Amino acid sequence: MRNIRLTVAYSGAEYAGCQRQRDEDTIQSRLEEAVLRATGESVNVVGAGRTDAGVHATGQVVSYRSETTIPIGRIPHALNGALPPDIAVVEAMEAPEAFHPRYDAIARCYKYAIEESPRRNAFRERYVWRVEHPLNVAKMREAAEPLIGQRDFGSFGAPMHDEGSTVRTVFDLRIGRRERIVHVTIWADAFLRGMVRTVVGVLADAGWGRLHREDVEQWVEVVCRGAARPKAPAGGLYLACVRYGPESMSR
Amino acid sequence: MRNIRLTVAYSGAEYAGCQRQRDEDTIQSRLEEAVLRATGESVNVVGAGRTDAGVHATGQVVSYRSETTIPIGRIPHALNGALPPDIAVVEAMEAPEAFHPRYDAIARCYKYAIEESPRRNAFRERYVWRVEHPLNVAKMREAAEPLIGQRDFGSFGAPMHDEGSTVRTVFDLRIGRRERIVHVTIWADAFLRGMVRTVVGVLADAGWGRLHREDVEQWVEVVCRGAARPKAPAGGLYLACVRYGPESMSR
Repeated sequence: MRNIRLTVAYSGAEYAGCQRQRDEDTIQSRLEEAVLRATGESVNVVGAGRTDAGVHATGQVVSYRSETTIPIGRIPHALNGALPPDIAVVEAMEAPEAFHPRYDAIARCYKYAIEESPRRNAFRERYVWRVEHPLNVAKMREAAEPLIGQRDFGSFGAPMHDEGSTVRTVFDLRIGRRERIVHVTIWADAFLRGMVRTVVGVLADAGWGRLHREDVEQWVEVVCRGAARPKAPAGGLYLACVRYGPESMSR
Repeated sequence: MRNIRLTVAYSGAEYAGCQRQRDEDTIQSRLEEAVLRATGESVNVVGAGRTDAGVHATGQVVSYRSETTIPIGRIPHALNGALPPDIAVVEAMEAPEAFHPRYDAIARCYKYAIEESPRRNAFRERYVWRVEHPLNVAKMREAAEPLIGQRDFGSFGAPMHDEGSTVRTVFDLRIGRRERIVHVTIWADAFLRGMVRTVVGVLADAGWGRLHREDVEQWVEVVCRGAARPKAPAGGLYLACVRYGPESMSR
């Protein structure tokens, strides 16, 4: 049986997240419907990252097992024809039989966009976190330093299972500005639930002088579920990239 | 009674157009609901342009009669708080008692965006007309010439009322390119229904060499309802601006 790996981009604005939920419109259920319509197969689509309601992706990775004989190069076009316009299959490739997009991922990258603007923009309101007060990027960078490396992020988010470890490794955390848009880019081996949005909310508060590097250090040293706050809104967040090792490549 | 004039921007992607229709989600009904929620008043919102389902606006003008005493400067914020994120009140001003946004408009500007790209983009698919083949802008400009001036546009669209005139004056029609995006900007005293999308569809066909300036001249000279085709899709179209004379200004 083929194991088909897709790179998927979507606007999460009108979806209840990536993962299938009863009676909710999700990315997973739309992808499964598209496969059914395009190839007649009922498949189970598995995603690398559970993005929350309203969170977007430019590089989500999903896979599904299929017996279709459609050439791999035709799959994006075939599925896009059966998907709503706010979901796009960007690439399809054959994956090894055992490939699992979540368990095999070795790194993930999320990007977050904050726009400094007093004015609502109907075309961007669900795609950036619009803030009224200007952010001090140097202060954000200072507050970000204690978060880089292998740390216990239990104050910043919850593990998928109650008993799971809350230790994660942040490889890189960058904050950049382009005019009135501040971008946060964060790479880690994996993330806890709510972790990126909490990190961004905390860094924004640092950028406004409401908290400091020492507060972040404290949350890393004394782990306490829910201690780090606030959490930035969903609309500014994008799952940008998921990385796999060479054993996840086929042929 | 106050007559309040608003400039409104919206993404039309999820609406059945601007004008209220039974059982449909429209910009007008959302604005009326927002006024009700913000001020407790049941009002009738009138728009300058009937944008179709899926058509966007950056500068739609609407008005409504109101007895509220809220200062005009606070109205955008109050209404935005009661509107969905894809509709934004950009500006509010007092209008003369007799002001009517459709009848008093002296010029309107629509913009249309065409993107040359073989790849679906989940974030833009409903905001541009994505085309696979490159457009020749010089040929589009040549085919646009016969459309500038006072013409009978009956081949390009329908009047609001069956007996209405189909003569309109196009003041300006420009085609520009910025990398892979071709923009069409068209100014006229008023437009027939479907006129802008038909003009853009025809110009695109000229840009692909499928029709020529002579075809456009023919449609202007021999008026025949529905003769000019094809019609470009709704998602690339934006109502950009509506202009009024000085008598429509208050104080």
